[in-house]
Amino acid sequence: MTTLHTHDALTARATEADAASPLRGTRALFTLPDDVIYLDGNSLGALPSAVPAVVQDVMHRQWGERLIRSWNEADWWGAQTRVGDLVGRLVGAAPGQVVVTDSTSVNLFKAVIGAGRLRPGRRVVLTDPDSFPTDLYMTQSAAGLAGLEVRRVHPRDAVAAIAEVGDALALVSYSSVDYRTGELWDLPAITEAAHAVGALACWDLCHSAGVMDVGLDAGGADLAVGCGYKYLNGGPGAPAFLYVASRHQDDFEQPLTGWQGHARPFEMRPDYEPAPGINRARVGTPPLLSVLALEAALTAYEGLSPADVRAASLSVTGTFIDALDALGVDLPLATPREPERRGSQVSLRHPQAFAVVQALIARGVIGDFREPDIIRLGFAPLYVTHVDAVSAALHVKEVLDGREFERPEFAERGAVT
Amino acid sequence: MTTLHTHDALTARATEADAASPLRGTRALFTLPDDVIYLDGNSLGALPSAVPAVVQDVMHRQWGERLIRSWNEADWWGAQTRVGDLVGRLVGAAPGQVVVTDSTSVNLFKAVIGAGRLRPGRRVVLTDPDSFPTDLYMTQSAAGLAGLEVRRVHPRDAVAAIAEVGDALALVSYSSVDYRTGELWDLPAITEAAHAVGALACWDLCHSAGVMDVGLDAGGADLAVGCGYKYLNGGPGAPAFLYVASRHQDDFEQPLTGWQGHARPFEMRPDYEPAPGINRARVGTPPLLSVLALEAALTAYEGLSPADVRAASLSVTGTFIDALDALGVDLPLATPREPERRGSQVSLRHPQAFAVVQALIARGVIGDFREPDIIRLGFAPLYVTHVDAVSAALHVKEVLDGREFERPEFAERGAVT
Repeated sequence: MTTLHTHDALTARATEADAASPLRGTRALFTLPDDVIYLDGNSLGALPSAVPAVVQDVMHRQWGERLIRSWNEADWWGAQTRVGDLVGRLVGAAPGQVVVTDSTSVNLFKAVIGAGRLRPGRRVVLTDPDSFPTDLYMTQSAAGLAGLEVRRVHPRDAVAAIAEVGDALALVSYSSVDYRTGELWDLPAITEAAHAVGALACWDLCHSAGVMDVGLDAGGADLAVGCGYKYLNGGPGAPAFLYVASRHQDDFEQPLTGWQGHARPFEMRPDYEPAPGINRARVGTPPLLSVLALEAALTAYEGLSPADVRAASLSVTGTFIDALDALGVDLPLATPREPERRGSQVSLRHPQAFAVVQALIARGVIGDFREPDIIRLGFAPLYVTHVDAVSAALHVKEVLDGREFERPEFAERGAVT
Repeated sequence: MTTLHTHDALTARATEADAASPLRGTRALFTLPDDVIYLDGNSLGALPSAVPAVVQDVMHRQWGERLIRSWNEADWWGAQTRVGDLVGRLVGAAPGQVVVTDSTSVNLFKAVIGAGRLRPGRRVVLTDPDSFPTDLYMTQSAAGLAGLEVRRVHPRDAVAAIAEVGDALALVSYSSVDYRTGELWDLPAITEAAHAVGALACWDLCHSAGVMDVGLDAGGADLAVGCGYKYLNGGPGAPAFLYVASRHQDDFEQPLTGWQGHARPFEMRPDYEPAPGINRARVGTPPLLSVLALEAALTAYEGLSPADVRAASLSVTGTFIDALDALGVDLPLATPREPERRGSQVSLRHPQAFAVVQALIARGVIGDFREPDIIRLGFAPLYVTHVDAVSAALHVKEVLDGREFERPEFAERGAVT
């Protein structure tokens, strides 16, 4: 078959898959340019159409007209836990365990120090040498202040390393999905291994929240963090979240003891007393335009179960991988082919990965480059369809076959990619 | 003279003062309800009319259409220092010393630990027992992690206490204006006293940024923090700022070592290396809707000098105090009458302060209550006029004379006031 015939056949099948998908209505809930296939929702999620009207209301009515009164009238005070519960549903957390606050980095700092205090006398923290760097930097700094020692062990070796460290282990801190390769790690198994030696497990959900059934409660997770601006579509730099399992909340002493985490914040007492429940993970006054934009964004998930989202995600990434195969694209996959071992992205390796990404962007296929040789393509199943996946595969083939990545204009690196 | 005649005479003078003010054009730059005199800009600043169109553009074009490309095209990456320089101009900081990031609470945590590291071997931190509580809580927690000891000394006694602590002193951390009484403390004198014993001074500008000539550089300040949502009008929970004097930046090691503060953030290196300059005070990805709303809000200050703003502020608060006197309101002032000793608010004491504030709000005069007996009225000079100040004084008189604060509906306290 010619490429054209192959592409037509793949597209026909993809069209059927889109029509049968439980997420078939969700693409219409997003505003995307017509000339773009957007495969960078794992860096910045697309604009949910519900967001602008909500933010307009927040600006003009809640802020402009009602002013300070909106803290009560619009329940600004409760926004961080209200939106936290919406995130919680998507990551398998029962209500009252997730708060939307600060950045992922800051929340990880709270989690590491808080975990150390939950496990006094234990001094080792395990984390992944291939973590997104902020996790490594924050864990190192927090551990230094808390008298903990960080050991870097790849998640594939985590279960054995946990047993080896034994009762010196305070915390294992891993991402559930590798930000570069898209490999999915076994949250329940690593968590269980940590519990078996009396340690805690903290999970970074930046690349899993909103695209899979993370199952924090079911998997026994103790702590988790994640961001609001990737698959949750909360907008650029949307606030992050922190999960503290109910059983730990009474003893969770996080170090960023801001007034919004106080038990009686309006009594203005001179000494800190943490609020009951997840509210103690709050710190200062949150950026409400961004918090409420995230709340509006999450309406796109109404009526969808995490399992449905996961199934659609795997179907779309599977369609993309199959299309690459069918079209004869023979780049090595950095992402596992087995569905149960991957998140919602497909990463390809190429020695000129940066230029390949630029060439794809010039064609309207927006993904991103990650050091050293990764073409990273994220498939947000709420707005990336099976037909998009087939089209993207054809663009990859054409960029490679035409050696478009050798054009000089694609070689120069900007500040941010 | 009758009250009516007094009020008419005061209003006539106020009208002249408004017409002669260097800030006479700025009220038109804000959107406020017609039936409100808004004296709570020290809790949540009013809506600058320039903000909604900018945020609309950020949502629809920068986020919705340009997507991830806006990190470069719209210079989202540079927003925190670009807006930081705008704030810097208002607080007397030369460019390159202020970054907009996180909350005031989080920035104070960075400042306290960072200061301890700039002054190794010194273990005492002085702070104000009457600080806004988050300052006390965060200082206590940061000091605990850094091996520092916090002593609470009222700012009126600070200079003597600094000399007494001597070379054990690492840091003095004070607010430039007391959040309850509105008393202004002597930043240059306390800073000089700290420097005389080799210590550093950190200033909380939450109640001074945007209403006076703070003069950080001129006063020799080492560190400062402040929020974006009070007099800077950045919107509910707008991001805060952190100032680190240029001379300290190379050695400022703050504990929240997030990836955006790294020297080469896109190389994704496994170990932290702080960026040169103020960028090292950045942490995670910032909430850009809120950061860019603050940037738009600050356009209201274009063409105004901090000295002009300070003069207008003192003129308006002075008009209010004079009007209370002229109208025979004899509540005790918590705020100093001497202009050089007050910020931009006037606080009155009343045994039923909460109910008085509710009665004023029912009349459209929005201020707030602070424990235990404070009626707190903030005068943001960009949108509170001399005529507003006279009207507010008459409302206070009428609430007191008519004993409106005794009405049952004003007695019950809500969650947030």
